[in-house]
Amino acid sequence: MKNKLSIPKNQLKDIIDLALSEDSGKGDITSELLIPAGQQAKADFTAKADGVLAGIDIVGLIFARVDPAIEFKIHLEDGTQLKSGDIIASVTGNARSILKTERLALNFLQRLSGIATQTKQYIDLVKDLPVIILDTRKTTPGLRLLEKYAVRMGGGQNHRRNLSDGILIKDNHLAALRARGMTLEQIVARAKSRAPKKFKVEVETASLKEVEEAVSAGADIIMFDNMGPSQICRALQKIPAGIKTEASGSITLENVRAIAETGVDYISIGALTHSPKALDISLEFRS
Amino acid sequence: MKNKLSIPKNQLKDIIDLALSEDSGKGDITSELLIPAGQQAKADFTAKADGVLAGIDIVGLIFARVDPAIEFKIHLEDGTQLKSGDIIASVTGNARSILKTERLALNFLQRLSGIATQTKQYIDLVKDLPVIILDTRKTTPGLRLLEKYAVRMGGGQNHRRNLSDGILIKDNHLAALRARGMTLEQIVARAKSRAPKKFKVEVETASLKEVEEAVSAGADIIMFDNMGPSQICRALQKIPAGIKTEASGSITLENVRAIAETGVDYISIGALTHSPKALDISLEFRS
Amino acid sequence: MKNKLSIPKNQLKDIIDLALSEDSGKGDITSELLIPAGQQAKADFTAKADGVLAGIDIVGLIFARVDPAIEFKIHLEDGTQLKSGDIIASVTGNARSILKTERLALNFLQRLSGIATQTKQYIDLVKDLPVIILDTRKTTPGLRLLEKYAVRMGGGQNHRRNLSDGILIKDNHLAALRARGMTLEQIVARAKSRAPKKFKVEVETASLKEVEEAVSAGADIIMFDNMGPSQICRALQKIPAGIKTEASGSITLENVRAIAETGVDYISIGALTHSPKALDISLEFRS
Amino acid sequence: MKNKLSIPKNQLKDIIDLALSEDSGKGDITSELLIPAGQQAKADFTAKADGVLAGIDIVGLIFARVDPAIEFKIHLEDGTQLKSGDIIASVTGNARSILKTERLALNFLQRLSGIATQTKQYIDLVKDLPVIILDTRKTTPGLRLLEKYAVRMGGGQNHRRNLSDGILIKDNHLAALRARGMTLEQIVARAKSRAPKKFKVEVETASLKEVEEAVSAGADIIMFDNMGPSQICRALQKIPAGIKTEASGSITLENVRAIAETGVDYISIGALTHSPKALDISLEFRS
Amino acid sequence: MKNKLSIPKNQLKDIIDLALSEDSGKGDITSELLIPAGQQAKADFTAKADGVLAGIDIVGLIFARVDPAIEFKIHLEDGTQLKSGDIIASVTGNARSILKTERLALNFLQRLSGIATQTKQYIDLVKDLPVIILDTRKTTPGLRLLEKYAVRMGGGQNHRRNLSDGILIKDNHLAALRARGMTLEQIVARAKSRAPKKFKVEVETASLKEVEEAVSAGADIIMFDNMGPSQICRALQKIPAGIKTEASGSITLENVRAIAETGVDYISIGALTHSPKALDISLEFRS
Amino acid sequence: MKNKLSIPKNQLKDIIDLALSEDSGKGDITSELLIPAGQQAKADFTAKADGVLAGIDIVGLIFARVDPAIEFKIHLEDGTQLKSGDIIASVTGNARSILKTERLALNFLQRLSGIATQTKQYIDLVKDLPVIILDTRKTTPGLRLLEKYAVRMGGGQNHRRNLSDGILIKDNHLAALRARGMTLEQIVARAKSRAPKKFKVEVETASLKEVEEAVSAGADIIMFDNMGPSQICRALQKIPAGIKTEASGSITLENVRAIAETGVDYISIGALTHSPKALDISLEFRS
Repeated sequence: MKNKLSIPKNQLKDIIDLALSEDSGKGDITSELLIPAGQQAKADFTAKADGVLAGIDIVGLIFARVDPAIEFKIHLEDGTQLKSGDIIASVTGNARSILKTERLALNFLQRLSGIATQTKQYIDLVKDLPVIILDTRKTTPGLRLLEKYAVRMGGGQNHRRNLSDGILIKDNHLAALRARGMTLEQIVARAKSRAPKKFKVEVETASLKEVEEAVSAGADIIMFDNMGPSQICRALQKIPAGIKTEASGSITLENVRAIAETGVDYISIGALTHSPKALDISLEFRS
Repeated sequence: MKNKLSIPKNQLKDIIDLALSEDSGKGDITSELLIPAGQQAKADFTAKADGVLAGIDIVGLIFARVDPAIEFKIHLEDGTQLKSGDIIASVTGNARSILKTERLALNFLQRLSGIATQTKQYIDLVKDLPVIILDTRKTTPGLRLLEKYAVRMGGGQNHRRNLSDGILIKDNHLAALRARGMTLEQIVARAKSRAPKKFKVEVETASLKEVEEAVSAGADIIMFDNMGPSQICRALQKIPAGIKTEASGSITLENVRAIAETGVDYISIGALTHSPKALDISLEFRS
Repeated sequence: MKNKLSIPKNQLKDIIDLALSEDSGKGDITSELLIPAGQQAKADFTAKADGVLAGIDIVGLIFARVDPAIEFKIHLEDGTQLKSGDIIASVTGNARSILKTERLALNFLQRLSGIATQTKQYIDLVKDLPVIILDTRKTTPGLRLLEKYAVRMGGGQNHRRNLSDGILIKDNHLAALRARGMTLEQIVARAKSRAPKKFKVEVETASLKEVEEAVSAGADIIMFDNMGPSQICRALQKIPAGIKTEASGSITLENVRAIAETGVDYISIGALTHSPKALDISLEFRS
Repeated sequence: MKNKLSIPKNQLKDIIDLALSEDSGKGDITSELLIPAGQQAKADFTAKADGVLAGIDIVGLIFARVDPAIEFKIHLEDGTQLKSGDIIASVTGNARSILKTERLALNFLQRLSGIATQTKQYIDLVKDLPVIILDTRKTTPGLRLLEKYAVRMGGGQNHRRNLSDGILIKDNHLAALRARGMTLEQIVARAKSRAPKKFKVEVETASLKEVEEAVSAGADIIMFDNMGPSQICRALQKIPAGIKTEASGSITLENVRAIAETGVDYISIGALTHSPKALDISLEFRS
Repeated sequence: MKNKLSIPKNQLKDIIDLALSEDSGKGDITSELLIPAGQQAKADFTAKADGVLAGIDIVGLIFARVDPAIEFKIHLEDGTQLKSGDIIASVTGNARSILKTERLALNFLQRLSGIATQTKQYIDLVKDLPVIILDTRKTTPGLRLLEKYAVRMGGGQNHRRNLSDGILIKDNHLAALRARGMTLEQIVARAKSRAPKKFKVEVETASLKEVEEAVSAGADIIMFDNMGPSQICRALQKIPAGIKTEASGSITLENVRAIAETGVDYISIGALTHSPKALDISLEFRS
Repeated sequence: MKNKLSIPKNQLKDIIDLALSEDSGKGDITSELLIPAGQQAKADFTAKADGVLAGIDIVGLIFARVDPAIEFKIHLEDGTQLKSGDIIASVTGNARSILKTERLALNFLQRLSGIATQTKQYIDLVKDLPVIILDTRKTTPGLRLLEKYAVRMGGGQNHRRNLSDGILIKDNHLAALRARGMTLEQIVARAKSRAPKKFKVEVETASLKEVEEAVSAGADIIMFDNMGPSQICRALQKIPAGIKTEASGSITLENVRAIAETGVDYISIGALTHSPKALDISLEFRS
């Protein structure tokens, strides 16, 4: 299913190990001093705010990596709309193991659920319109696949996963080639002629004139960079049916509705991943 | 110098490689189609908003990792208060290399500068008071040392780097031991008696009664978890000179001043790293 | 010159006579009682508020009609931007004649200047955009040519002067023909085929589907009836270059800018003439 | 009945013919091109906003003038408080005739109902006080009798219909006679002595001193020109019982209540007719 | 001079002695324990807020009463508009004497200056109008003459000093006599006929009908009890020149202007003395 | 009972006589002119606003003093929470006697009930906290015992009644002794050593340093003069258990809650008695 997390096992193991290593240092001295080595405990992951859940499977993998004897039971699936107070998952096993894993598990879970929650807020504002909300490549280094998964959990879709995933001619490509005397129209035309058939050619534009050149050159997708609703409105009048359009840059919860109402096909939002707000989730020992 | 980035070279190399790998896939097909392999370019990192710079050295390391022939020139040091429009650094070299590195470099730089900027906002609100602003372990998995470095650039200080870095008895330690019939006072006393001399014992408290027990047991540092200014005010009256105090939980730009005015020694703020807001910085080719 | 008042002399005389007759009744008994028949006077028309002047030539015609011996001197031309306090014109002659004409002269002048002033307010809000502001047929019975002239003085342009002035297929035409089984597309196509070459065919539409039918049928001008900016924005994307567009219905000073920003060619505003606000102008005897 | 429209038949015919002529030009080319000459239609006049109805009888006269074969059926009488959605009247007959008459009928009906509606707003604000709301001679040239009728429909009363209808000594009469060395007191006294018994003498005043002179001279009615509530309050203290008083000038919905509370007998409001706001009423073909 | 304090010496001595006695009890034990009997000191009375000074002469009398050897030097006279920081008076002498007198001196000075200050606020709001602001008999028991003096310092005037000072027929007089079958008109007429010539007869009224009766009966002054501006406005129209009028009851800083604008002669305000706000003035030892 | 009024009979008689004398002058000429000497009347004291009753017993004493034959019946006790409209007490007897006493009775009753009402407003804001609200010596000269009684009726407690009632070392004591080279610590120590055992020593402080000195010297009570909540919060941390604390100066309804939340033991408020607001109570003759 397209909404499932598909991330190479090794890569996930690498990031978990890196995170465990940076959190553990020479060991959890507090627990070692206080908690008997054999003590057992039960604890629950509980939502402390409303939001959308993402990352609970990762949490299971982290516990398994730290202590395979721990029993991890998921009560709510990723993508669930959480109410404050909902119990998401439970963990049973060695108390020292749970304590050692607690912070790391929450760091993943709160971050990914925060991204899903924020994505959902954008989706809710435009859900009666045919627009699609996309993420960008502005992700946390090392966590891209997880963060793009969280965007999907919130109802968004993913833009290019990486640089080999599509042709997107951006401002600096244009600058480099204009320095060689080429027009935007010539640049796009060259990309069209050279690109393998299966690749769509997308080009970033910043003015009505560039939009017209992109249309002439046969661009498959035209991105409007940092244009407001009224400029996008006029740009769309220059673009024949069949060419897809994307708004990007400076999109906020305040203006996403007005931009979507222009009829643009996609809106891509860097803030989904570059400025997330963690969702408050706790892990608490049960007595 | 304490404010310098000290991160093991291998660890930094690992995270850079991981990030480069997840962004490159099978190669940057856009540049390969359009940009001649030998084309040279110059580009500037420019602030698009006011804030505090952090991470520009990392950017240099990333370019060096991708293409050692690239010349990278830093104009402004980490910790600089940026004005929108300031040119931070310049890069000269192979155009394809610059384009391939652009997004990753900005992802690091915008995120770390965002953390430094937000930290500075908290610092500015309490700068006439003797309180110290701390970060927490609520960092992005894999980026902890970098994010804690960004907090320092913004004027904050670092709490425990990892679990071996200090003794902090938190709610779940207390829950595990109370289940065995111990009081908070007994738990702290045990930690004091068992801990090596060089370690301070810090304990999380959630009520005036727990504060009194912590004092009786000889805690070195007492953390107030999710207490408001008036509750902290009363708690401080129970605590003799010589014991340090820390407020934690639900700290915001709106309440940090009132909390600092109680006279608490430290305020630790998870949002510095778990809910950052990227600082807008661009990389633009110069014509 | 297109901005000059061109109204058949007889027609103007008729409306002036009608107005004089309804104001005079059996004579101005106040003046006849008090003012000596031969007394001379001088009086000034003075602006009591800021606005745009329209109708001062009419005022001259009215005085001439009442008493050809009166000397009427115009200081400011129609179309002038008035400041409160500006002296617009002066009149010298028989005091009874001036008193008898005063109210009627002001009724024309205040009303027409009010229309010009309000038109200018709309114009000022969109003056950097290529849109044209039009009036409608929603004029005062008997004063249409004068009111349309006032709109021009305020910077607007005139829509159809009367029913023989162009082909505009409105909702009731459509209703009457749909009752006979015709589609909007068929109706417009019939108008196009039957109309003399020199006439453009304009059609009123209320949905995107009707817009598409109008385009298919070859309409020359498409009117959007009571559509908001975002609906207009989408409609414009369906319309090829060469077809003119007009927004109409529920236009206010609050929304005219957003509608103009969609790129529509014309905006027609009934309120210019159906809901004017008189401009405060006085006629005061000079001592 | 005093509230009925009494307007000489010829005069009404004249204004209808003038308006028909200015709207028809050389004929309704749209209808002639599209609508079969013999097609029948039914249509309803429907309120699109709340307000007070005025002018529906005129509408009947207009249809009768254009096409005596049209059947016109009135459902709601003039003076009715309309709710948006109310069906006011229905018309059945030749479709071309209805289309040709539509705009003119609505121009009368919306304008007169707008005047009645606005008058009612003033009335509602003072209805518990014994004050009477009056119109002025600031009417549309040619439409005075109709507009004064609309004021009555809204609950107002009519001031002088024309210059022979009463003696009102205004600022310019005073100016003309002061130039001859007369005082306000002498001017009013002269009017009193010369006027036929049946005429009341009203005089406009602008200061407490003028009020006192008017009282001394025996004025029957004293008008306060552009005075605020506190100045009117003091003026009324100078005026013995038996003399009527009238406030005039700069009356708005915001200040009419405070002015009425002073105990003044009449308030005359030019804006009722010089700055109306059309009431939204539609004519729609029934399918 | 009318604005000077005229209060019988004995009466002033009595109130000072009473106040000294209630403050001293068996002696100032704090000073006796700590301050050497012969220690000298200097201290300044200083304004800590803006306001109007009243009572500084009383302060001199109090010091003289406690210790005739104390030197008291006045720098600013009663009635002075104080700015925060102004030094009002200085005192030099035995430290114990000054300390013992401090509180009592300030209690008089702050209270009387508070009354003067508040009176001035009312005066300032109506100073361009010919109205006179009066106090009432709603004073502190024992302090009436001092408080009425403070009202004069703030710019007010004094109403009746006591019950023998004028004839004021209030609601309860009316109630007692109406119970015997008399009308207001009869009651006032009786007072007029019986009262010595030098006394004006004032009567309290609560409706327009009572106002008319009071006029008929020949009242010299008519008080409007708890009437708003519009009711007063109408009442004044019933009252011929020569009768004075007074508004009383529920007067505040918010409505005093509107009431004064009606043209009433006097406004009496109980709050001047029944709800004062002390002016902040300190007495501080100079080092 | 501690809440009862205990004031020496002679003292109360003195203040009543003084007040009667200043209100009567040479007699109540209005009543003497109009009201038959033998007329009887009944009247009720009625609350005209919500508040707390204080002083009704005094009212009884005043009537008894003026006319022992008057029957005075109390319906509601001091300390009752009044609703507007409540009948508090009734009086029956000679009409002239009642009229003569009316104003004085209300002056006492409105003032004392005003103080009780305002005290209750402070109490209500902190009633869930263990703080005690106190009055001060800032009372009306001559009325101290009555005003302190009213504070008790509102739920407050009384601070020192007079200078012999406790040891309170204030700013001027400190200034006088510092001028002799003593520190605050030495001054307090001297007071402690010299004071009789039964007296607590209270000292006013204005800085954290003075607080520390007061603690060292063994003060029993420490007053914080004009400190805000955050400064008090820090001061309380310097003060060991067993020493009482009091906040004083600039306390308002707006800040009393924040000050009480610091955990201070007492809050003393001068405004309770130096800036009262009379409670509206009437005396009305019954028909």
